[in-house]
Amino acid sequence: MTLVDRVLLGPGPSNPYPEATAALAAPLLGHLDPVFLTLLDETCARLRTAWGTENARTLPLSGTGSIGMEAAFANFVHPGDVVVVAVNGLFGNRMVDVAGRYGAEVVRVDHPWGEPVDPARVLAAHPAPRIVAAVHAETSTGVRSDIDLLAAAARERDQDVLVLADCVTSIAGIEVAVDAWGVDIAYAGTQKCLGVAPGLAPFTVSERAWSRRVQRPPTWYLDLGLIGAYVDGSAGGRTYHHTAPVAMIASLHAGLGRIMAEGLPAVYERHAAVGRRLHEGLGELGLELFAREGHRLPELTTVRVPDGVDSAKVRATLLADYNIEIGAGVGEFASTVWRIGLMGHNARLERAELVLAALRRVLG
Amino acid sequence: MTLVDRVLLGPGPSNPYPEATAALAAPLLGHLDPVFLTLLDETCARLRTAWGTENARTLPLSGTGSIGMEAAFANFVHPGDVVVVAVNGLFGNRMVDVAGRYGAEVVRVDHPWGEPVDPARVLAAHPAPRIVAAVHAETSTGVRSDIDLLAAAARERDQDVLVLADCVTSIAGIEVAVDAWGVDIAYAGTQKCLGVAPGLAPFTVSERAWSRRVQRPPTWYLDLGLIGAYVDGSAGGRTYHHTAPVAMIASLHAGLGRIMAEGLPAVYERHAAVGRRLHEGLGELGLELFAREGHRLPELTTVRVPDGVDSAKVRATLLADYNIEIGAGVGEFASTVWRIGLMGHNARLERAELVLAALRRVLG
Repeated sequence: MTLVDRVLLGPGPSNPYPEATAALAAPLLGHLDPVFLTLLDETCARLRTAWGTENARTLPLSGTGSIGMEAAFANFVHPGDVVVVAVNGLFGNRMVDVAGRYGAEVVRVDHPWGEPVDPARVLAAHPAPRIVAAVHAETSTGVRSDIDLLAAAARERDQDVLVLADCVTSIAGIEVAVDAWGVDIAYAGTQKCLGVAPGLAPFTVSERAWSRRVQRPPTWYLDLGLIGAYVDGSAGGRTYHHTAPVAMIASLHAGLGRIMAEGLPAVYERHAAVGRRLHEGLGELGLELFAREGHRLPELTTVRVPDGVDSAKVRATLLADYNIEIGAGVGEFASTVWRIGLMGHNARLERAELVLAALRRVLG
Repeated sequence: MTLVDRVLLGPGPSNPYPEATAALAAPLLGHLDPVFLTLLDETCARLRTAWGTENARTLPLSGTGSIGMEAAFANFVHPGDVVVVAVNGLFGNRMVDVAGRYGAEVVRVDHPWGEPVDPARVLAAHPAPRIVAAVHAETSTGVRSDIDLLAAAARERDQDVLVLADCVTSIAGIEVAVDAWGVDIAYAGTQKCLGVAPGLAPFTVSERAWSRRVQRPPTWYLDLGLIGAYVDGSAGGRTYHHTAPVAMIASLHAGLGRIMAEGLPAVYERHAAVGRRLHEGLGELGLELFAREGHRLPELTTVRVPDGVDSAKVRATLLADYNIEIGAGVGEFASTVWRIGLMGHNARLERAELVLAALRRVLG
């Protein structure tokens, strides 16, 4: 079979770090092997660094990023809890759906797509929510919201509120500081800036949130109390829950190892520099960026499709002629916006120059 | 880092087929790439062959085997439904927990561990259950139950009953014939006889079950209606649900390709022959098999730990000196039974002889 070799510059997955790919093909370990358990512990420790947290309960969940969102609401929404969700894109919208399934009284606060979340509006929506939830980096629009400001404002009003953040597209791409910001519950995915294939959802929970979790959530697979007995051996021995996806965890371990070796500040700066170059280059092509200035993600850029240009045709040509994948827009912007990701291993100048050169040719 | 190379002869994961390992490290594809979607369609087609079904709704779910169990109950249990669960090991027991979380009125029918499920007893437990559930190959005890007989008896009494079978340890190791047996809902895992790393749960649903599914299950991630819109493009275009674990699916595609090339009858016969040799060899060592004769799985053998032998010490020695992993028993048999798997790529005579030789040395 001929293998197809793509440059994945859409909203994810991105091409993994070479170390992460190599680890996928390493000899497989059993999920109870002491060597694997050491690797799992190290993975959790590295995830703490990536999250900026000392939360004991920091682990990779056995599913793709969306399973993190599900676990967040399944384990922390008691039926009837008021959950305020800031919606400024697809993933905020999804939070509304998921929270509702677990019995939340959801108060949604809509923002125009392309705009960041407004903490004042979110707080004004309800006087005493149990959970305030928002997306840090909206994958559908390329917008960064100020979770630090939102969390601080929410906490100032109510010491006990739980702050929940979707960090799928931010972790290891732009700064995430769970502890410093006062975020209680956060989840991510591996296939964006972590530079690993999709299949795991890094997750972290504060002590405050943990003490108020649902004791027997509807979901068995994502019952954090049960999973914790396997991942966290400190309570005296590991209890088997489900068979961990060992190859994926070994790959995450390796991807995080690469990131730690470079150092998070350098990784952030690399994403920032490459994103700047892409934004600048798109401007040179006469293209207009979509996300609000000052809140543009360096790792995921949204750009308006020029009038009269067939969005799908351009994407198909990039794929067929250059093996470059970029993403369509979402929802009402499906055919009027492109999404270009420079994430993880793809946050390199050669990737930015490549997609700019190809776009110049295809649009020219 | 020095890689540790184990021979995984426990209850799973097993060492993957080389083709499956190679596919994990192939260039990553986007989850909406036409090349990937073709590969996904082929994977579903190959799964139909492995299941022995023509069910349109046959797909790999994005989690390890246990997520299949969760999806089975989440999507087909309406609150208050009577679900009869045959329990003859850990996984039947787990079904009781999971079904209860989704609001089932569970009627459990306990059997001694090591014994197969008795269809007559299961049917006698309730006159009109909505679902009858059982485990085909109990990973905790090494026992095969006659799902064909159970399904036929249940269907004879009530044409509308749904039959649900856990095939995690049976698929691609012993015969599974979903359509011929009249099974409505079945799930599996990739890390046993399919010879792929853990991370996916093959799943199949009959039309009869599909028409009576829960329209909006509590779980968003496992909502089969939503997932189907992505996996099954026949309804006019794919709808993004969650980012598919593309590397794992490529690996499953390759593992199934290997199995299809050999042919399922040959694969079954290989498992049977190797299992026979292991059973015979264990007898030569003076060891006593645990599972009821006539219902012993060739792919997963349970054997009693001889009196006076420290079970954990033997396992630790096999791991340390021979890099061989075998499994402990489960529950009350944790220290009195071993579980030895010869599954998928490990269903080879050299693996059987190796573990027999090592056991002879360690026990001698």
